[in-house]
Amino acid sequence: MRIDILTILPRLLEGPFADSIMKRALDKDCVEIHIHDIREYSTDKHKKVDDYAFGGGAGMVMTIQPIADLIEKLKAEREYDEVIYLTPDGEKLEQRMCNQLSLGTNLMMLCGHYKGVDQRVRDMYITREISIGDYVLSGGELAAAVLTDAIVRLIPGVLGDETSALSDSFQDQLLAPPVYTRPAEYNGRKVPEILMGGNLKAIDEWRHEQSVRRTQERRPDLLDHPEK
Amino acid sequence: MRIDILTILPRLLEGPFADSIMKRALDKDCVEIHIHDIREYSTDKHKKVDDYAFGGGAGMVMTIQPIADLIEKLKAEREYDEVIYLTPDGEKLEQRMCNQLSLGTNLMMLCGHYKGVDQRVRDMYITREISIGDYVLSGGELAAAVLTDAIVRLIPGVLGDETSALSDSFQDQLLAPPVYTRPAEYNGRKVPEILMGGNLKAIDEWRHEQSVRRTQERRPDLLDHPEK
Repeated sequence: MRIDILTILPRLLEGPFADSIMKRALDKDCVEIHIHDIREYSTDKHKKVDDYAFGGGAGMVMTIQPIADLIEKLKAEREYDEVIYLTPDGEKLEQRMCNQLSLGTNLMMLCGHYKGVDQRVRDMYITREISIGDYVLSGGELAAAVLTDAIVRLIPGVLGDETSALSDSFQDQLLAPPVYTRPAEYNGRKVPEILMGGNLKAIDEWRHEQSVRRTQERRPDLLDHPEK
Repeated sequence: MRIDILTILPRLLEGPFADSIMKRALDKDCVEIHIHDIREYSTDKHKKVDDYAFGGGAGMVMTIQPIADLIEKLKAEREYDEVIYLTPDGEKLEQRMCNQLSLGTNLMMLCGHYKGVDQRVRDMYITREISIGDYVLSGGELAAAVLTDAIVRLIPGVLGDETSALSDSFQDQLLAPPVYTRPAEYNGRKVPEILMGGNLKAIDEWRHEQSVRRTQERRPDLLDHPEK
């Protein structure tokens, strides 16, 4: 998979892919991530990438020209499954969308900033608008990093153990059960006895019960909409 | 505000605070962010921070000892409003929580990895479990960066223009209206005429209408629950 991220603040994206699973995915060539600095495409003599909003009001708006030129250039080079705009008013990201997007070949992600991009960019180029949650960030960079991470870890070969992602929260509409590791006792707090025995069937049952209970307590909405 | 982030992968957090609004907030002393490497607190001779899950199954579990020692050390130094664990089965983050958390003085955030932390860490120390959305990430670092960004931008003095955050999506249960900037025409696509006139009252009305329409189309749930 190839992911192109378009941003006016490329430095923000240096850390998130520098270590751990993302780094492993890059090292193993499971994914290529290309960060593009929108500012380099500005034909303005001061390399400006934003301007005041028509109609007034607080906050700047990202201008069309550099973004349009960059998107046109990339689209001329290859076909994209989706040109995604990360925005708080987009479709809310959830695990099923990550699963689906992880099957793509080329994804483009545009990071907004300030009050967002000129609406005409969205009208002309964007095929999918995604929000990572109901809150506002100072820019789309972290949202793009989150989306990239959530997708890339699902690509076969990225996680060390193939079964690991399948036992995550949400993959079966249930939250994950509690987990414990050594020591068996810490400051008087013990690991549930059932996990210490070797009865794998009983352990599976206990875990399933715990998952259901945790989901009932914390996220009954997941149980209400099994089709979601 | 002071934010302490506890992680086994501190490098992942180098980028997100290096530029833009987060950097400005740090430079202006609106916030202090301290990244702590959990591994440094491991008493294991190999500085191990994870171990196999009791009961078997895929994925490693983060051990208690280094996390507990680090949390105890920090709590002995100051009082924390919340000790937050970023986890997909936590309370789902939304703008109101960000507003509330932005009033805090000291926040601690623990980033999980692999299958998560030993349940006893959660039982003993965590006062609040937060999920940034219904999807799984390879670790809690990006979630901590998202939470930090969403909170810090709300601290007075961080954004350049105080009215800017108040006109964001979600602050009034409406999505933001479309925005436009120069040029007035781009490849035949024009800015809506009303924004080009100087009638501020008409512009305000148009924007409100657009906000309501966009919310109805994209997120009717926000309108259904005005108290949420």
